[in-house]
Amino acid sequence: MFTATVLTMFPEAFPGPLGVSLIGTAWRERNLWSLETVDIRDFSTDKRGFLDDTPAGGGPGQVLKADVVARALDSVTGPRRPLLYMSARGRPLTQARVKDWAAADGITVLCGRFEGVDQRVLDARGFEEVSVGDAVLAGGEAAAMVVIEACVRLIPGVLGQAESLSSESFEDGLLEHPQYTRPRTFEGLDIPEVLLSGDHAKVARWRQEQREITTRERRPDLWERHLAKSQLKGAKARGEET
Amino acid sequence: MFTATVLTMFPEAFPGPLGVSLIGTAWRERNLWSLETVDIRDFSTDKRGFLDDTPAGGGPGQVLKADVVARALDSVTGPRRPLLYMSARGRPLTQARVKDWAAADGITVLCGRFEGVDQRVLDARGFEEVSVGDAVLAGGEAAAMVVIEACVRLIPGVLGQAESLSSESFEDGLLEHPQYTRPRTFEGLDIPEVLLSGDHAKVARWRQEQREITTRERRPDLWERHLAKSQLKGAKARGEET
Repeated sequence: MFTATVLTMFPEAFPGPLGVSLIGTAWRERNLWSLETVDIRDFSTDKRGFLDDTPAGGGPGQVLKADVVARALDSVTGPRRPLLYMSARGRPLTQARVKDWAAADGITVLCGRFEGVDQRVLDARGFEEVSVGDAVLAGGEAAAMVVIEACVRLIPGVLGQAESLSSESFEDGLLEHPQYTRPRTFEGLDIPEVLLSGDHAKVARWRQEQREITTRERRPDLWERHLAKSQLKGAKARGEET
Repeated sequence: MFTATVLTMFPEAFPGPLGVSLIGTAWRERNLWSLETVDIRDFSTDKRGFLDDTPAGGGPGQVLKADVVARALDSVTGPRRPLLYMSARGRPLTQARVKDWAAADGITVLCGRFEGVDQRVLDARGFEEVSVGDAVLAGGEAAAMVVIEACVRLIPGVLGQAESLSSESFEDGLLEHPQYTRPRTFEGLDIPEVLLSGDHAKVARWRQEQREITTRERRPDLWERHLAKSQLKGAKARGEET
């Protein structure tokens, strides 16, 4: 069973969004995955319970100690799982990585606080540093929830028939098309005519166009990669050397 | 006072990480910001409480209705604030946008579920669509927490002396340098010698190098932008036309 273990100084922040809706039911009632928190505060060897110390080389703030994190991590039993550290310094989260993790026995996620974590424990234990958006957070907990939720929804049976996994954003490098539903007119805005035409081929074409337009406009980075891939495919189809 | 209002079908997911540590104290005890949730489920006009309907044009799943979202939004009183919709279709979160939002009276954040929200209410009301990482979530709640935490930590007084806001990732387009603290040796790994030298200029140089190396390696996109900016600055300093 997929187990998400979170190393955090604030286990009380969990489960938050991980405890609601189908994700929450899949955990609490259907046993399709499990969530565990490890309180980093339990692993201080300092009499006063200190977890952090001043940065080597000077500078503001405090750094979470390597040995404290190492002991917290060593308390996690079971098979070796991917180790993630949520950090603004990390590589951006991608759906491809999420799929890899979702296929593992689970993930262990370290949430930082203060100015960060002593780099040596990240290096020594092989943590992968992951960021969610180019913004700085107070701690890694909210980011950990994003990653865990993204993984768990891919576990077979978790979403059931309620949501679709195909044709969603990033599946083929494009963002999703916009959605509309009843009523036909909302505050003077109509559902695009083509969606009411009943012509499935036309609807599919329109949606594909919308995906391309939105991706080009909002994510020029994804769009460029998509173009490069399409050209490669085209060249291959024509039997050209690549 | 900065007010974060969340439109969600799962208010019980909150406050999660927003209720802990300095962010939580700043809200509950120090009144430096406030968190409100609006339960979208209260705004159905359907006898059976339905909030969603099938996608126009066909396809799997359900779409959150425009009129339900509109009524939930209209229940929020107070000054007009930036409206965000957390969505994989959105523009990626950046620290620059976070700073804009943190300087506002607050933000109103819509969390989607199902296959998404009827596009017309997003267009009609001027929601900005924002994504956190290229991954698909089951709902917008965890992503909303990321955005709200990123904003709230910038409100004067929230972090106090505990953390520094300068020299952090994205401040000048580079990722942060790695951090180290006592003990000097951890599992055979030493703190880099230069950090123990007491030579502040050397430490500053080493850290800047580390920031550049890490950014180049992990974020070629940020690195390119940084280079372009540095070249522009250099050209300006030499009095060249730009």
